[in-house]
Amino acid sequence: MTLDHGLAPLSPTDRTTIGRGRNRMVEDRTELHRLLDDALIAHLGVMVGGHPVVLPVTFAIDLDGPDEDGTLYVHGSVAAGWLRSAADATVCVTVTELEGLVAARSAFHHSMNYRSAVVIGTARIVEDPDERRHALGLTVDHMIPGRDATLREPTRKELAATAVLAVSLHEASMKARACGPVDDQEDVDAGTWAGVIPVRRVFGEVEPDPLATGPVPADVVRRAGAL
Amino acid sequence: MTLDHGLAPLSPTDRTTIGRGRNRMVEDRTELHRLLDDALIAHLGVMVGGHPVVLPVTFAIDLDGPDEDGTLYVHGSVAAGWLRSAADATVCVTVTELEGLVAARSAFHHSMNYRSAVVIGTARIVEDPDERRHALGLTVDHMIPGRDATLREPTRKELAATAVLAVSLHEASMKARACGPVDDQEDVDAGTWAGVIPVRRVFGEVEPDPLATGPVPADVVRRAGAL
Repeated sequence: MTLDHGLAPLSPTDRTTIGRGRNRMVEDRTELHRLLDDALIAHLGVMVGGHPVVLPVTFAIDLDGPDEDGTLYVHGSVAAGWLRSAADATVCVTVTELEGLVAARSAFHHSMNYRSAVVIGTARIVEDPDERRHALGLTVDHMIPGRDATLREPTRKELAATAVLAVSLHEASMKARACGPVDDQEDVDAGTWAGVIPVRRVFGEVEPDPLATGPVPADVVRRAGAL
Repeated sequence: MTLDHGLAPLSPTDRTTIGRGRNRMVEDRTELHRLLDDALIAHLGVMVGGHPVVLPVTFAIDLDGPDEDGTLYVHGSVAAGWLRSAADATVCVTVTELEGLVAARSAFHHSMNYRSAVVIGTARIVEDPDERRHALGLTVDHMIPGRDATLREPTRKELAATAVLAVSLHEASMKARACGPVDDQEDVDAGTWAGVIPVRRVFGEVEPDPLATGPVPADVVRRAGAL
């Protein structure tokens, strides 16, 4: 019933070794990038007051920056306490896409189909306003590809109020399960039904703001039409 | 662009105080229970090797047990390292449902609609086989309501191989955003389009295991038909 992470060769260190489920690890970095592209939120783990706190965050990745492994950016308000706690500390960013409920023939073998990535690294607070601007644009485009170019430039005040945290994709592990139930032979022989209920995320009909005028922009139409 | 948590009156302590976004907190415990009922996975934060690790897990809640605030159960293999790390330690379990992409009139005001709960507490390893059995059944029924009663009893060996971690729902905070873009007046005046792209999870057509015989059980049909 768990979706825990094992050692994945994506990671050059052993910090992403949790020691289980090696059969489910994914070795291909392009699969990691595809997952980070598909997922819309991440869960950031930081130490606050002596214990871990896990917070949902929006994020974006940059594969074209100076870090050859790629950089994961997380945004926050400069007033957010967890951001200060994360500065220069080791954090964990986990991204999970649920893709199916696996109804096995026994409670024990029930499972889920999913893709999940765990990134562990030192959180760097981005000081350079240009890099902050770049990360903000990437985050908007991660949400709705192409939208950033259609918007006015952020003001100095907005950029000053935006804290950005960067984590290298250097240490990452990825796991995926994408198959049917794995059952004991006697449960198969007993004739118990088993199967998978696929799960996916869909976008609904766009809801324009009451004060919005003009047609829905092409980038928004494209995003809403994507599955 | 963040979905961070603020102080919520759900919590009787200040450990779930992250200090931001108090306008988005949810004060009603029934809303917390509804979110924990709707969500299918949680993200568990544990300290491993001196830093936080965040792992996707299946879970269930029990509102009828001895803990009057309710108990959140997380399953794992007895061989999983993170479970040993979590024993008697303070952990954080976060559950998030993404419900919309908020396309504002500026990059700065882009946001997401979501519901999210953060539960912080001491992880108790469940030693009692009866409580482990109970938690396993709740987890199966959380995934597919009603399914546990249709399955054979877990064997002693299966129960011995199942580790269960319990966290009280005593310390919990919940936040939600469920509205349109909040923009600066000059951006509204400039005529930039803004709106929301709703996001929801759907279940696809059931995929019976190739060796499965007979009709798809009623509980699976009901779950797959639910939005």
